[in-house]
Formats: sequence, C-alpha cells, structure tokens
Amino acid sequence: MQIDPQWLLPCALLVVLMQAGFTCLESGLVRAKNSINVAIKNLVDFCISITLFALVGYGLMFGPSASGWIGTGDFGIAGLDPDLLAFFFFQAVFCGTATTIVSGAVAERMRFVAYAFTALLLSGLIYPIAGHWAWARTAEGDAAGWLGAMGFVDFAGSTVVHSVGGWVALAALLVVGPRLGRFGRRARQIEGHSLPTATLGVFLLWFGWFGFNAGSTFAYSDAVPGIIVNTALAGAIGGLAGMAASWRMKGRPMADAVMNGVLAGLVSITASCHLVSPAASVAIAAIGAAFAAVAAELLARWRIDDAIGAVPVHLVAGIWGTLAVALFAPVDAFSGAGRLEQLGVQVLGVVAIGSFAFVAGFAGLWAYGRFSRLRVSPRDEVIGLNIAEHGATTSLLDLLSQMDVQANSGDFTRPVNVENESEASQVATFYNAVLEKFNLEIDRRRLAMQRLAELAHHDALTGLGNRRLLLDGLRQALAAADGAQRGALLFLDLDGFKQVNDSVGHDAGDALLKEVARRLRTVAGSDALVGRLGGDEFAVVLRELSDPVAAATRLADALIAALAEPVAFGPHRLRVGVSVGIALFGGTELETVKSLTKRADTAMYEAKLAGKGTWRVFDAPAAEA
Amino acid sequence: MQIDPQWLLPCALLVVLMQAGFTCLESGLVRAKNSINVAIKNLVDFCISITLFALVGYGLMFGPSASGWIGTGDFGIAGLDPDLLAFFFFQAVFCGTATTIVSGAVAERMRFVAYAFTALLLSGLIYPIAGHWAWARTAEGDAAGWLGAMGFVDFAGSTVVHSVGGWVALAALLVVGPRLGRFGRRARQIEGHSLPTATLGVFLLWFGWFGFNAGSTFAYSDAVPGIIVNTALAGAIGGLAGMAASWRMKGRPMADAVMNGVLAGLVSITASCHLVSPAASVAIAAIGAAFAAVAAELLARWRIDDAIGAVPVHLVAGIWGTLAVALFAPVDAFSGAGRLEQLGVQVLGVVAIGSFAFVAGFAGLWAYGRFSRLRVSPRDEVIGLNIAEHGATTSLLDLLSQMDVQANSGDFTRPVNVENESEASQVATFYNAVLEKFNLEIDRRRLAMQRLAELAHHDALTGLGNRRLLLDGLRQALAAADGAQRGALLFLDLDGFKQVNDSVGHDAGDALLKEVARRLRTVAGSDALVGRLGGDEFAVVLRELSDPVAAATRLADALIAALAEPVAFGPHRLRVGVSVGIALFGGTELETVKSLTKRADTAMYEAKLAGKGTWRVFDAPAAEA
Amino acid sequence: MQIDPQWLLPCALLVVLMQAGFTCLESGLVRAKNSINVAIKNLVDFCISITLFALVGYGLMFGPSASGWIGTGDFGIAGLDPDLLAFFFFQAVFCGTATTIVSGAVAERMRFVAYAFTALLLSGLIYPIAGHWAWARTAEGDAAGWLGAMGFVDFAGSTVVHSVGGWVALAALLVVGPRLGRFGRRARQIEGHSLPTATLGVFLLWFGWFGFNAGSTFAYSDAVPGIIVNTALAGAIGGLAGMAASWRMKGRPMADAVMNGVLAGLVSITASCHLVSPAASVAIAAIGAAFAAVAAELLARWRIDDAIGAVPVHLVAGIWGTLAVALFAPVDAFSGAGRLEQLGVQVLGVVAIGSFAFVAGFAGLWAYGRFSRLRVSPRDEVIGLNIAEHGATTSLLDLLSQMDVQANSGDFTRPVNVENESEASQVATFYNAVLEKFNLEIDRRRLAMQRLAELAHHDALTGLGNRRLLLDGLRQALAAADGAQRGALLFLDLDGFKQVNDSVGHDAGDALLKEVARRLRTVAGSDALVGRLGGDEFAVVLRELSDPVAAATRLADALIAALAEPVAFGPHRLRVGVSVGIALFGGTELETVKSLTKRADTAMYEAKLAGKGTWRVFDAPAAEA
Repeated sequence: MQIDPQWLLPCALLVVLMQAGFTCLESGLVRAKNSINVAIKNLVDFCISITLFALVGYGLMFGPSASGWIGTGDFGIAGLDPDLLAFFFFQAVFCGTATTIVSGAVAERMRFVAYAFTALLLSGLIYPIAGHWAWARTAEGDAAGWLGAMGFVDFAGSTVVHSVGGWVALAALLVVGPRLGRFGRRARQIEGHSLPTATLGVFLLWFGWFGFNAGSTFAYSDAVPGIIVNTALAGAIGGLAGMAASWRMKGRPMADAVMNGVLAGLVSITASCHLVSPAASVAIAAIGAAFAAVAAELLARWRIDDAIGAVPVHLVAGIWGTLAVALFAPVDAFSGAGRLEQLGVQVLGVVAIGSFAFVAGFAGLWAYGRFSRLRVSPRDEVIGLNIAEHGATTSLLDLLSQMDVQANSGDFTRPVNVENESEASQVATFYNAVLEKFNLEIDRRRLAMQRLAELAHHDALTGLGNRRLLLDGLRQALAAADGAQRGALLFLDLDGFKQVNDSVGHDAGDALLKEVARRLRTVAGSDALVGRLGGDEFAVVLRELSDPVAAATRLADALIAALAEPVAFGPHRLRVGVSVGIALFGGTELETVKSLTKRADTAMYEAKLAGKGTWRVFDAPAAEA
Repeated sequence: MQIDPQWLLPCALLVVLMQAGFTCLESGLVRAKNSINVAIKNLVDFCISITLFALVGYGLMFGPSASGWIGTGDFGIAGLDPDLLAFFFFQAVFCGTATTIVSGAVAERMRFVAYAFTALLLSGLIYPIAGHWAWARTAEGDAAGWLGAMGFVDFAGSTVVHSVGGWVALAALLVVGPRLGRFGRRARQIEGHSLPTATLGVFLLWFGWFGFNAGSTFAYSDAVPGIIVNTALAGAIGGLAGMAASWRMKGRPMADAVMNGVLAGLVSITASCHLVSPAASVAIAAIGAAFAAVAAELLARWRIDDAIGAVPVHLVAGIWGTLAVALFAPVDAFSGAGRLEQLGVQVLGVVAIGSFAFVAGFAGLWAYGRFSRLRVSPRDEVIGLNIAEHGATTSLLDLLSQMDVQANSGDFTRPVNVENESEASQVATFYNAVLEKFNLEIDRRRLAMQRLAELAHHDALTGLGNRRLLLDGLRQALAAADGAQRGALLFLDLDGFKQVNDSVGHDAGDALLKEVARRLRTVAGSDALVGRLGGDEFAVVLRELSDPVAAATRLADALIAALAEPVAFGPHRLRVGVSVGIALFGGTELETVKSLTKRADTAMYEAKLAGKGTWRVFDAPAAEA
Repeated sequence: MQIDPQWLLPCALLVVLMQAGFTCLESGLVRAKNSINVAIKNLVDFCISITLFALVGYGLMFGPSASGWIGTGDFGIAGLDPDLLAFFFFQAVFCGTATTIVSGAVAERMRFVAYAFTALLLSGLIYPIAGHWAWARTAEGDAAGWLGAMGFVDFAGSTVVHSVGGWVALAALLVVGPRLGRFGRRARQIEGHSLPTATLGVFLLWFGWFGFNAGSTFAYSDAVPGIIVNTALAGAIGGLAGMAASWRMKGRPMADAVMNGVLAGLVSITASCHLVSPAASVAIAAIGAAFAAVAAELLARWRIDDAIGAVPVHLVAGIWGTLAVALFAPVDAFSGAGRLEQLGVQVLGVVAIGSFAFVAGFAGLWAYGRFSRLRVSPRDEVIGLNIAEHGATTSLLDLLSQMDVQANSGDFTRPVNVENESEASQVATFYNAVLEKFNLEIDRRRLAMQRLAELAHHDALTGLGNRRLLLDGLRQALAAADGAQRGALLFLDLDGFKQVNDSVGHDAGDALLKEVARRLRTVAGSDALVGRLGGDEFAVVLRELSDPVAAATRLADALIAALAEPVAFGPHRLRVGVSVGIALFGGTELETVKSLTKRADTAMYEAKLAGKGTWRVFDAPAAEA
C-alpha cells in the first residue's frame, strides 16, 4: 500500500469539510428549535471520533490483525511515521463521517448524552472492527481482515462507512422511537426550517466526497480522474433521478428529493468508483437513488422516523453500491473470482458487517436505555432541544414563552418584559402596545358601562340611588345580617312638601328635594345607604350595627334636625319637616325585604300620626321610648 | 496543451465549490419565499450541466472541429484517457458555472421547468459552441476554433463563461419580464432575506475563483502565483471600488455593492490574470467594478429587473475584462498582433459570442414561451416559488396562510389549527389566545349590552316588557299578520287596584302588581307577549292564530279566573278583578298600532261599563256573544 | 527558506476560507440586527488587508530589515518572483486573519468607518511590524527580526497572528466600551441569532486552520502529517474540554463553549504544532481551552464585553500556546537554549509584541476617538447596525418600525403600508386585518353606547330630549353665552290637554303629544333645542342669538300658530293651545339653570294668567309688549 501524504492529506481535508456539510444538511432539515442541538452534535461527534480513533479505533482497525477479526496494536498512534500519520488522519475523518450519519437520523428527540454514547460506541468499537474485516492490511499490503481476504471489494466505504453508519442509525431509530406527532392520528411530515442551508450542505458533502473517493487511492494514480468523473456523474444523475422520482410520486420536484438523490447517488458509487466506467456509474447512481426513494416511502409506511433520510441514503444506497461492484465492475478486478462468486462475497460482506453493526448498535443502545434515558422528555421535545439541552435560548424565544404564559393564563393585563437591546424588543414593544390599547379599551368600556348602569340605578334629580338600587342594597344587607351584625331601615316622608311645590312651583320643589338629598347624604354618612323611593319619600339603610336602635334613633334625630333648617330658593326660604319610620333587622327571625319595608312604612305612618317631624320605631315603643 | 491532473483536479474541485457559493449568494439575495426554489435550481442546474456536458457538450466544445465552428466527436466522453478525463471535469464545472449565472438573474418569477429548459439550452448548446470558437484545440495544441485562431485571448473565461451566462441571463430577463412590483407605480427595490448568507456565498465564490483562474493553466506553471495574487487583488480592489461607488451614490457603504464589487473585480481579471502585473490587475478590477455599478443603475432605469445583479457583474464586467486584455497585457503576449489589432480581435470576440449567445438564448426562450409558460402565475409569484413550485411549505407558512384567510374573511371566531409539535405552534398558541380573549371580550360586552337594553325595555317592578317593548312587538305582529295568521290584542285594566293601594299601602299595591304580572305570564304562556302599560294597565298580544276570537276569549276567561284568586300579603288577602278589552288584527284590512290599541281600549272600557270582571271584543258583539 | 508554491498556494487558499469561517461564526454569534454589518466588515477588512499588505505591509514585514525592527523594501510587491508572490499571498491572508479577529469582538456597536480605520491600522502597521520582529528572514534564510534572532519560536502565529489580533481587540474593547444592556442593572448575556451558522463557521475555520498550520512549512516536509494530526487533535480536545468546562460551570454542554473550545485548542497548538507529539498537543489544547473558558468568565466579571469571545480564544490561548512551546517541545528544537531560557524568550516575545500591539492599538483608537466617533449612537445601537450603517433594511424591518410608530403613538386607526410583493406582506395583511377588526369593534360598541345613551336621554313617547338632556343643553348654552351671543328659554304648557286626554282617551293624548312634538321640532328648526319636560310641558332653548327677544317672540308666535291647527285622530279633531313663557339669558349678569328655568316658568304662568294661547317674556313687559 503506497501512501502519498501530499495527495492523501488534501483529500482528507475535503472529508473534514463533509462534517460542515452534514451540519448544514442536518440543521437545515430539522426544525429551528432543534437546529443548534443538531449542529453541536455534529461538532462534538467529530471531536469524539477523532480523539477516540486516535486512542483505540485506529489500533482496532489497522493494528496487527488477530486472525482477521480485530486489530491489536498501534493504540494511541504513538510512533507512526509521517506516511502512517497521514493515513491515520484520512481514516480518522472517515470514522467521523460514519459516526455523524446517526446524528441526523435520530435528530429532534435523542438526548445529547445518549447521542454522545452512540458516537463513542460507533467510532470506538463498531466502525473500527467492521472496518478491520474489510480494510485491514498486512505490512506487505495484503488483505489482513477476513472479508478483505475473501476478496470483498468496498473501495471507499459504501458498506464500511455509509452502511455501518446507516445500520447503527436504524438500530437507534428502533430503540428511540419516532418523533411526537410524526405518525399516528394527525400524522404529518415534519419539515426542515432551512432548505437553502441544507442545499449548501449537499454541495459541501459533494465537494468533500471527491476527497473521500479520490483519497481512497492513498496516492495519486491514473485511476483518480475516472474516480472524480464518476463521483461527479453519480451525484448529478442521482439528483436528477431523485427529482424524477419525486415528480412522479408527488407531482412536484421536491427539494429534499433532489438532495437525497444526489447523496444516494454518491453513496452508491463509493464502493466501485475506481473500477467502473462513467456509463456504469450513471446506471449505478440512478438505481441507487431510486432505491433510496422507495426506501424512504417504506420507512414512513413502517413508522420508522428517520428525520433526514439517513437510512435510505446511507444504508440502502450503501448496500446497493456494494452489490453493484459485482454487477458492474470488469470481472478481472475480482482477484480471480467470477462475477457470481464475487456477488456472493459482496452479499456476505453486506450481511456480516450489517448484522454486526446493527446488533452491536441495538444492544448497546438498549443496554444504555436500561440505565438512563435515551430520549428527552415529551415536554422537552415540544420545547425543542436547543433550549432543553443547551439552554440555547434567545430573547425571541423568551418573548414567545412569556406570551405563552399569558395565553395560557388568559391574563393580558401586564406587559411582557424584554430588554431594550435584545433582538425581540421591537416585537415586544408592539405586543405590549396592543395589550395596552386592548386593556385601555376594556377599561373605557367598563367605565361607560358603569356610567350607564348608574343612570339606570339612580334618581335623575337628586343623584341618590333609586328604589331598585335601595331595595337591592337592603336585600344584601338582610342576607349579610345576623344576630351580631344588625341593621335598620329608616323611611322618611317629607312633611309639607306638596305645599311648597304647589305654592312656590316645581322648581322650588326640585331644588328642595335636591337639598334634602344632599343633607341626608351628609348626615347619614358614607356607610349608610341613602335612596329616594319616589316623590317626597326617602329611605336610609344602616348596616353592621351592634346597637341598631341607638344608631337609628340617633340618626333619625340628626336627620330631623338637619331638615329643620330652611332651604334658600331665590327670595324664598323653603321649609319642610320629615317623619321617620324605623324598622330594625338582623335579629334571629327570618325577614324579607317586603316585611321590613312594610314595618318601616307603618312606623313612618305612626310618626306622621304622632304629629310629624318625629320618628317611631316599629313595634318597639317600650324599648325605645 | 499539457495537462497535470494533480493540479487540474483540485482546481476543478474549487470550481465545484463555486456552485455552493452561487447557492448562498442567490438564496441570500432573494426573498425567503423563493429561497428554496433558487437553491434547488442551483443544485439541479449543476446536475443537468454535468450530465449534459458529458453527453454532448464536451463533444461540441472540444471534439474535432468542423472548420472552427463546432466540435464533432468525443460525445459521451467514452474513451478519454485520464488526463482528458481530468480536463473534461474541469471544463464540465466551468459549464456549470456559466449555466448557474442565469438562475439568479431570473429568480423569483421564472418557472422551474422553464429554467431547467434554459439550463439545457445553455449547457448543451450555447456554451459549448461559443466555447469551441474560443478554446477548442487541435491534438497538437493549436487553436482550432475560428476566434482562437484569430488570436482571441480569454484566459479563464470573462467572455466564454461569464459573458455567455450574462447574455443568456439578459435574454431571459427580457423575455420573462420584471418581478411584480419592481417597477412602475410604487416601484421598490426588492431586498434579499439574508445578506450574511450572501456574504458567505461571495467568500465561497472567491475561494473557488482561485481554482477557476489558476486551473486554467491545466498544469502548474510559474504563472500560477501571479494568477493567484492577481485574483486576490482584483477581488479586494473590486470590493473597495464597489463600496466607494455606493458610498458616493447612496451615501452609505451598501452591503450588496461591496459583494457585487468583489465579483465584478473577479470577472474582470479572469481574461487576463495570467498576463498582467498586480498593478494592472488593480486597475482592471477597479474599472470593472465601476462599470458594473453604473450598469446596475442603468438596468434599473431601463426597467430590466436583474434579481441579483448577474448582468452587471457577469456580462458587463466580462466584456470589460475581455477588452482589458488588449489594453493592459504586454504586447508580446498577442501572438504577433499589435495592441490595437488585438483590441479589434477582442471586440470581435465579444460581439460574435455575445450575438450568438443572446440571439440563441432569446430565440430559444421565446419559442419555449409559445408552447408553455415561462413564468409562474402572479398568484404563485406572490405566494412564493418555494410553495408554488416545490410544495416546500413550512408550518409557519401554513399558519400565515390560515391567518390570511381569517384576515380576508374577517371571521376571527375560530382558532387557527397548528400541530403541537410544529415550528409554528408557539405563535399559533399566542394568536389563538388573543383571538379567544378578543372573542370573549366581545361576548362579554354583548351580554352587558343586552342586560342594559333589557333594563331599558322592561318594567322595573314586574319584570314585564314596558309600553315601548309591547308596542314594538305589536308593530311586528301587525306586520307579520295576514289573512291566515291573525292575532289579538288584549287590554287589561285591574278593577279595584286603587282601593288596595290606598288602604293597605304601596307595598301591598306593588306586591299585588307583581303577583298579577306573574299570573298573567303563566296563564298567557310563552308564546304570548305580555307587558305593563303603566299603573294598573296591562296588555297581552297573541300572534299566529288561526281562530283569534276563540283563542283571545279563552285566554280572557282564563286571566279573569286567574286574577279572581286573592293575593296573600302578610295578614291581608288582596283582591282585584280585571276588565279585558279585545281587539283582533290580521284580517285583510290595513291596520295601525294606533287604531288597534284604540279599539282594544274602547273594548276595555266597554267591559268596565259592563260591570267589570269581564271581557269584550271590539266591534264583534254578535260573533262572540 | 524553501518555498514550494504548489504546496503553499493551496494552503493559503484554505486560509482564505477562514474568512468565510469568521463571517459565519461572527454573524451567527451576534443579533440578527447586526448580522449584515458584521458580515460586511469581514468582507471589507479582507479587501483592505490584502490591498494594504500588498502596498506596505509586506514591505514592512519582510522587506530588508532595519536592525531587526522594521522592514524597509519590497513595497507594492513589485518585482517579486513566483515563489515570493506565493509567499506574499500566504502572508497576506495571514494578515487578513489577524485583522478580522477584531471585528467580532467589537461587533454590535463600533462604527463601520472606525472599524475600517482599525483594520487599516492593524493590517498596515501593527501586524507587519510585530511580524517583522518574529518572522523576518534574511535572503539566506536566517532570522532577521530581533525576536526571531533571539530564538523566539512561534511557528504559525499563536502570538504573531492570534495574540496581535487579540491585543488590538482588547484595546478596542476598552476604548469603545460594552454594548448597551450587557452589564449593570439588568445585565444580560446577549445571545447570537444563529448558532448553526456559527457552527458552520467553526468547521470552516478548522478546515482552514489545516492550511494555516501546514502551510507554515512553506514547502511540504515530513513534518506536515504530524502538523495536520496535531491540528486535528487540538481542535477535538479543545472542543471536548470546552464542553466539559461549560458542563461543570453551567450544568450544561453549552454550544458556544464547545465552539470556542475548538478554536482555543487550535490557537494553542498553532505555535508548536511542528514540534510536539500528538500526546503533547492534546495536553496543550486542553489547557488552552480551559484558560480560554476561565478568561471568558473573568472578562465578564471585569465588564469587558467581547461579543464573540475573541480575547479569550485568540489572545489568552495565543499567549498560552506561545509559552507552551518552551514547555512541551523537545529541547533540541531550541537552537541551543535550555527549556527555561527558551521560556524566557517566549515570555519576552509575548510581552514585547503584546505591549506594542496593545499600546499602538489603544493609542490609535483613542486618537481616532478625539476626532470622530468610534461608536454608533445609542439609538442606532438599538436599531441595529444593519440599518443604521448600511441602510440594509428589509420590508419586515420596515413593517416592524411602522408598528413601532403606532405602538408609541397609540394610534392604531390607520393600516400599515406594505407592498403586496414584499416579504412582510402576509404579516402586514394579518396585522391590518386585526387592526380593522379592532377598530370595527370599537365603532360598533361606540354606536351601541350612543344608542343606549339616547334611550336614557330621550322621551320614549315623542322622541324629544327629556328633562335631563334639556337641562344639560341649557347648562352648556349658559356657559357658552356672553354679551354678544345670547339665548332664550321658552317654556310651553299645553292648554286644554287634560280635557282631551280624559275625554277622548290616553291614545288620543299620546297621539296629540307626538304631533305637538313633531310640530315643535319643525317650527323651532334644527338649531334649537327642543325637549319634553314631562306631561304636557315642553321647552325650547334658542342659542347664539344677537337679538334674543325678537327671535324668541317670533318663535313663540310661530309655535302658537302651529299648535292652533287641530290634530286629526280617527274621527276626532283634537285641539289644544299653548302658553309660552320666555326667559332670556346671556347678558352680563351671572345666571344659573335654576334661576333661568324659574323665570321661564314664571313667565309661562303669566301667559296662562293672561288667558292662555299667548306668550310672555319674563321681566321685560315694557320691551316686548
């Protein structure tokens, strides 16, 4: 195996950029609320896989082989010569690629810690071991892994990289389960938040893929231009095939179908790009993209929720690409085997590596799930993993959650609180202004209502409560009264009012009534309920008295005294008196408004009969006299 | 022509990344509603042009020349050796660049299918043929195209790539027309939705441009460092010149002016970067950026709506760059021609290729337009091509369109419907809460209004409708009545009420009236309209009767009987009677409320005269007696 | 110094892409309102530094040394051979990197022009001079700068590039001050608007960093694979260390902590990546990331507001990386010095270059601040620099600012105005519809209120204003009246109404009253205020009269005449007369409603006494008689 670092390292760097491509693709294809989580998973899994591959992965994959099953040396990459360091780096970024495939599939619900565990498992164990089978070499450059020794051909990793990532993704999907709302009643496609970003990701992936495939030569050779051209054509044809498939199935050229078509085409050609002709690469890519399109439909039917289509693209097209080697490559590339024989080896490789990766992935995640949660809580899933896992909120999200609280509580009386300098301040200012206007309108209406209600409940001339209001108040007072908290109703009938009205005129009568009302209000105080029953009849209700007789008679005296003062009306000095009937309430006996007013009326007539200008308490002559 | 794939392929890969650059630039400079469409056009046109260039383009451009006008072999790139495969790949990504220039110019209104046709036409026909004229070589490396043979110099394609793309873009702009609202009354600049993304695009383009220019050597040579430095300086000076131009013209350093300045500088230097000194490249770039800035203004004045400035940048600066070869390159680079002579050749090249590209593009699109639509419908243009062409909606857009329906219908009574898990759910929750609160307030006000209206229309003591309400009801009943559906008005006057009032008191009178009202309501039933006219007068309206006389007299009897029962009031048993006057309505004669009430009144008086406690029907003694 | 352009140029291109990385990182980490400004600063500073480095920077840095302190030739890069042109380009993009570090730190408040000045200062003066000290070489390849000659080791620029940028950033932060709202009462972390974009930026930076470090060999050597691996491991470990630090300090794996950890790891390894083992690079990066994390906390505590963490990442980790050379590199790399001696040289380099860069940066910016503003106005800072500095508004921002105006004025009666085709039209349509609905509801309520108020203020039978309304109107008329604008109050009492009512019936009475009201209204005209005081009493108020006596008596005559006409009621012809009392108001004397109505009443009685059917003016018998 000849290695030219000057060729291999630049190719490896292109593969590094594939991480950026995955980041764009995946964060673009998920909802905004999970975009940061996905991006940061891509960054962290790259950090993890580089580190882990240096520590153990490289040793397991390319260390001296134990019977073709596992590598056993070179851990910690100590002592590698420059060529091998370059080789390590190339393989390390491959490992990173395999690892990050999972992140997109399980996006939007898997916990960050659980995903980090998956990355550890995949890059530290599954990928290196499976890779050893296919790609390990002896120092002399012969195949050292058992699959490689059988003649298994997987040039740049349709199976070793893409399918392994895809199998673990599938295992994770089955263990973790679909996203909320993706299937079942009211099932819906969950759309990405930025397809232009995802498209940028596809271009970055394609760009990196050239290094992925061309670098797998380890040193420049005459095969490279063909590899590059095949890679270009496979992506192009894959994209067109994906577009055609979506046009046929959905009636439209769907954006994500074009993208996944490009990627499926690229995955398909990865195993055989060094062997096949441009024409063959076109066929392989078109079929691979079609398989991926069909697989995506089947997954949805089987309720396996792959957020970005990682399984159709990397697993399904990866399997196809591995088998396609036997179907399309020239037979003399098969180290002696016939085409059918080679197909058998390819199938064996797909099955062996697939079983191992899937079982190990499933078992590992299942075991993890016994000890810890693989999945965020439903609440966190609704909130989004940006906030739930990284506290990566923004002022706009803050604002929305404040609005949410208001919406749920129905209390819109207080403005939302957002700092002036923050992103969301303009929206918040607007929202608050609407709230304020809204609340203002409500207040205005309430005041207008109160005013109208007042008009309906008050006497127009004197401004006192009218009969209705007074009786309502009396009813409430009766209901509230008990043995300790008693009350009194005073009925007042003016003495000599008719005379004034007839002799001095209506105006005088009106003026007199208004002045009487004013005095009543003043003397009775604000705790008493004062009303005009009609004509020259008034009433006062006293409430919450401990000694109602004393209070009522004291007030009656005061009222009589107050009205004794004549009322000036132009040149006239109008004089009226008042007769007061008092009825007490709030004893133990049950009492109605009707009976109470009747008693007060009776007492008032007694006062009239007693010579006017005095008061009487109903039925209590002895006590009060 | 010496080709070094190890140099050429990496350069070609940088050009691949220019597609990502165009995607970022163009999707950033259009409105969000068209961003997916633009991105996917960039992806698809790359797929198309790679495929088509492999099938026919390469053969037309670099196949054995037919008299310098067109290539005639190497179709399907079968049998190319590795060096030529690398050469093909480099040329294929050039073709992709020329093609994608159009996508930005006609963004936001051209149909996807029509654009795909344009990409086919450009990459399969126009670009290869024009390219053949300038760049085709014989096997010996001599110029094979007629323009090349004349000494036309266009190193990396100011004309061949950029102007050709620009000419077809211009043709498409003229055929397709400007975006809605861009010109005319209320014309406005249509701004991009993400200038940072566009800036990223500029950097990616600049990065790729180094490969574009440096790769045009086909193998590393000592000219390369100069090419790289010239490319760097041209972009830098172009950006500063663009910034200066916008500062002068708009008073501010406009972001898009800087970007287009960088690109115009790069286009300008593309033809001559291998020949001129760094100082000359600075001059060429500055002038090119200035030309592009002026051209952008002129296009707007001429109402040619170039969405991203493709024509100023690629066409205008491309023409300038081609001419600048003759002005700035050392004269010994001109294969024997003098500077003026060379200028003539350059002008000829610009005109010949320009005419061909523009005419072919215009004719092709015009012909297409005869058979199919080039442009989306105005409705789709307003909605945006993301949804209209790719169904690429998002829940947020769903939400907005639901809001839109509500806004247009004015019906805000039902909440919008958005899945819990979707992007837009927080906004929708808030919106719905505001709606609910709004509707609640409306309901609350309505109830308060009804309550107040009730107060205004009902008698306070008895709760019956007052005179106004009763007369309103009667008016409606009269209007609704006809020969078949007749009715009756009953006037009731209590007999002996005054006596009760005077002897037992107001309270007794009030209690009596309330009880009378209760009994009237009960006896008359819910279909009848019962009201208190004032004092001790009541009325009942019966409607929709087939035999009004029978119904009215039956009711009158029942009422009289009901009131015959004395009313308990404390120790008293109050007794009143009632006299009932009945007037019928709904015959063929025209009748007014006035005449009807007059008749009922008269009948009532007759009942009184007849000894009270009985009823009389107006004018119908014979029939009813 | 051996230079291989075929190695160096591709590495330089990767460094170009770091500009794109900075653009993504910085625009993602600031608020959306400043994202365009940051992006365009990144583009412009690259243009500036390339241009300026060609003009003077390269000469100052790599021109023939004046005693090791400053370069003195090669200005304008004229006459450089291809190798040196490649070298120039590599150094120019390094200069661009150092320059752009500042843009992120002072983002969101520094003026564009002031930043351009900073870029000029840094790339034209500070960076080249400091760089000369460390990196200048004689033609023979020996160190020519004083620091380099002392054995200072800074392979790819932990100090020369990153710390210099960091020192100037720190100076700028101190001169410019923190962003509004970042510290002090209600201090808050200001969050970025797109962390996925920032993550893309990190990947682009990492990708470019490989070129940054590997290119510093100037030609491929066996050290390169180790450099690449160290760069990969340093980034990976830095990211994991940053994540661990944030997990420990904040309880969560913060996204920005991972990003800055990767970058701090990369900065740390930059000085020594060619010398240390992979294991050492892991240690260096981990420590560097930890230092950066602590420094970020300290800066916040010291109220130094670094918007993207440039100082912790580039300055602090840069210092650490420079010192780490002496601690981790094999001692035989130290050109004869011992480890401690070498540490002394490294410290000296850090201090010397740091002092120079900080002092020059601080002095330059301070001096600039004496002549012009370094910082945008607080208003512009709140609005955001996108709009304030580049007019880079969007229709959505337009809309928000219109909403803002409405919110501040409280006037929601007019719709916002947005073109149909623009981005914001859907939001605007919705907003306008809500406004319309809102205003409609307000109108509807207002009308309902008016209707209810009317019911409360008008006489039910005649539709005239009631006593309350009339007295209100009279009060206003009195308040408005003065010597010139006088008025009159007419009291009308029907003569013979009771007789009609009793003889012909209530209905006749009501009809008569309604007809009287109609006539009164007709005769009095729309300027007069006509009301029914109760029973058969009416009143008319005349206002704004110059000769009230004439007007009032003329009206009185007309009213008497109008009512003289009998009213038809069925077969009856009802007749009433009217007596009118007139009182004038609006002279100089003070008058109340009470006194005025009293006078009118009196005059009316006089009219009655005078035989009915006539009028009298109060107190003015002589004038009117």
